[in-house]
Amino acid sequence: MNILVINCGSSSLKYQLINSETEGVLAKGLCERIGIDGMLTYQPEGGEKEKSEIAMPTHTEAINAVLAALTNEKSGVIKSLSEVGAVGHRVVHGGEKFTSSCLINDESMKAIEECNDLAPLHNPANLIGIRACQELMPGVPMVAVFDTAFHQTMPDVAYTYGIPYEYYEKYKVRRYGFHGTSHSYVSKRTAEIVGKPYDQMKIIVCHLGNGASISAVNCGKSVDTSMGLTPLEGLVMGTRSGDLDPAIIDFVGKKEGLSLDEMNEVLNKKSGMLGISGVSSDGRDLEAAAETGNKRAQLALDVFDYRVIKYIGAYAAAMNGVDAIAFTAGIGENNIKMRKDVCSSLTYLGVKLDEEKNNVRGEERIISADDSKVQVLLVPTNEELAIARETLALVK
Amino acid sequence: MNILVINCGSSSLKYQLINSETEGVLAKGLCERIGIDGMLTYQPEGGEKEKSEIAMPTHTEAINAVLAALTNEKSGVIKSLSEVGAVGHRVVHGGEKFTSSCLINDESMKAIEECNDLAPLHNPANLIGIRACQELMPGVPMVAVFDTAFHQTMPDVAYTYGIPYEYYEKYKVRRYGFHGTSHSYVSKRTAEIVGKPYDQMKIIVCHLGNGASISAVNCGKSVDTSMGLTPLEGLVMGTRSGDLDPAIIDFVGKKEGLSLDEMNEVLNKKSGMLGISGVSSDGRDLEAAAETGNKRAQLALDVFDYRVIKYIGAYAAAMNGVDAIAFTAGIGENNIKMRKDVCSSLTYLGVKLDEEKNNVRGEERIISADDSKVQVLLVPTNEELAIARETLALVK
Repeated sequence: MNILVINCGSSSLKYQLINSETEGVLAKGLCERIGIDGMLTYQPEGGEKEKSEIAMPTHTEAINAVLAALTNEKSGVIKSLSEVGAVGHRVVHGGEKFTSSCLINDESMKAIEECNDLAPLHNPANLIGIRACQELMPGVPMVAVFDTAFHQTMPDVAYTYGIPYEYYEKYKVRRYGFHGTSHSYVSKRTAEIVGKPYDQMKIIVCHLGNGASISAVNCGKSVDTSMGLTPLEGLVMGTRSGDLDPAIIDFVGKKEGLSLDEMNEVLNKKSGMLGISGVSSDGRDLEAAAETGNKRAQLALDVFDYRVIKYIGAYAAAMNGVDAIAFTAGIGENNIKMRKDVCSSLTYLGVKLDEEKNNVRGEERIISADDSKVQVLLVPTNEELAIARETLALVK
Repeated sequence: MNILVINCGSSSLKYQLINSETEGVLAKGLCERIGIDGMLTYQPEGGEKEKSEIAMPTHTEAINAVLAALTNEKSGVIKSLSEVGAVGHRVVHGGEKFTSSCLINDESMKAIEECNDLAPLHNPANLIGIRACQELMPGVPMVAVFDTAFHQTMPDVAYTYGIPYEYYEKYKVRRYGFHGTSHSYVSKRTAEIVGKPYDQMKIIVCHLGNGASISAVNCGKSVDTSMGLTPLEGLVMGTRSGDLDPAIIDFVGKKEGLSLDEMNEVLNKKSGMLGISGVSSDGRDLEAAAETGNKRAQLALDVFDYRVIKYIGAYAAAMNGVDAIAFTAGIGENNIKMRKDVCSSLTYLGVKLDEEKNNVRGEERIISADDSKVQVLLVPTNEELAIARETLALVK
């Protein structure tokens, strides 16, 4: 079966058409500037990337453009829409309602809508994408795959904040965590690669990209993760602050004369490695700057590594031990020095990196030494494939 | 030499008169309701506690009442004020200016005043106490001992937040940490008790009271600590939230229609174990409630323990190992079950608690088994004695 995977934002949309038997990507691409003008990027398997300006006043036109490209006589990869067996949609926030992926129907759409409050920037856009697909592909089964669902196994000690309990009861303020599809995929692959039963392993997954989170996966279940009610908490990220003394918001807000909304903007868009360095949110730019002697660029990189080290340590304690540590996502898969620096602070756990094995980017492999007490792995994440698998499981 | 130790708040003041040779407490007590009406508690060594209503319109009258009690013919412990050789003042925030205690003079008073901004509730009260003492005991040398000073050895990776760097440059927004006098005293005692050189040990100090913080002391230097710019960050405390997704402030503030000042009040006074349980901020009340089946009281206790476990894990990673873990302050010294629960999650570090040795309150001793890889200790803190020692060192 061919499964169309859709990740829909407010003005952009990523897609992949995946053959569920071979798990190969038939075509992939991106719609940008939806509601502004419109730009489609389309790339068939083994083919060149094509860019075309197409008017996209709404998401419906955007998805229509994707379907037209997929079935296009010249560069299309399927003959007609009847060859799309199902659609898998990434949905950011499933609140406490969704502990796993679900078939999309009136009832589940209503439940997803009820989570909008928790992710006001993301969920409404995800819903728009679902509705546009329903309009253009009536009768095709669709599945919602949630960023939060994998973490719903967290115990209350991990998800309860130290605030008045009524805020949880009234507004569901608690830790949810994100990147769940990736943490789930990477932790399962880790167990497979290591060759141990998933439900008997203590795994720490470091999903380190522009957005970054770490999770503790104990016996196949997420028991803690660094992102919280929103993706702002936890590690220092590209432009997000991560953990802060909560009093800083008031302190800086008053000094700078910023409203709460403006402070939120600062903490989400102008903070993190960009804020510390003043140079860039991108690790590669920071490394280049650090090499020419930029001390704040070096500090940003060092703070990033240090927070990763502390979270790994915290989660090793939360699980009373760790069998494997997996690095994934842009920084996790490509930053050799970061992995080396992090592991060099974990020798107390019995971590022993094999520097030669670690000298690789984006390749699935064990990078710890054979006699390392804790296995360390590089596991490229594949959220689209994970969404396709989840979708297949629910529609077949 | 007799040293008067003063810990002055906005409407209260704690004092101890300590003989620096014997390190015995000659007398101690408390002034309360300063600026309202006034109440003096006074207790001479080996004597009964006396309470007396005395008008205390300002701190000067409060300190005058203390000095009168100390020299009182009946229950006083000294004949005249000439027997007070020096005064040691606790000062909450020394910013980046003070990396150690200092003699009080015009210059240092000005520098302390410049830190008011960072602790607007505490430093001005500390200064009032100093000025009142100067007025009543002219010529007596005085020393300021800072809560923050011990942590000034933290490296930049530990004290830098993931926010725009200009906030550090302009307003000195960074991690400072508090309870420094206690973390310093307890970590030094830990090394003495264990019998290893302080400057070769990795020690984690858990100062767990109504306010609570954990520190990582590597080779005699604080390298990280859980409190931040203010004492709000870190562990879940009696009434303080500790670590939060920073986005929660905006989210809850808008839902509840609370201003930033009101949110700060909630996070400092109505959160933590009180907020989670809805019962009390006091661990003993929570244990009693949990025993009768109150689930939220149990949750508050469990969250407290879990955060302690995670911070110990994080700091073990920050130091790439740990030789000793010390518990101190009200909860740390008295909560046997908490220590047991925390240690039971740390067996991966080689921690092995001796349950019999652990079955004690407020007594200085090693509570880990003889074959524990990491030594675990109970070390009652004594901030007043530490302040007296610091004072003596600067005035003798």
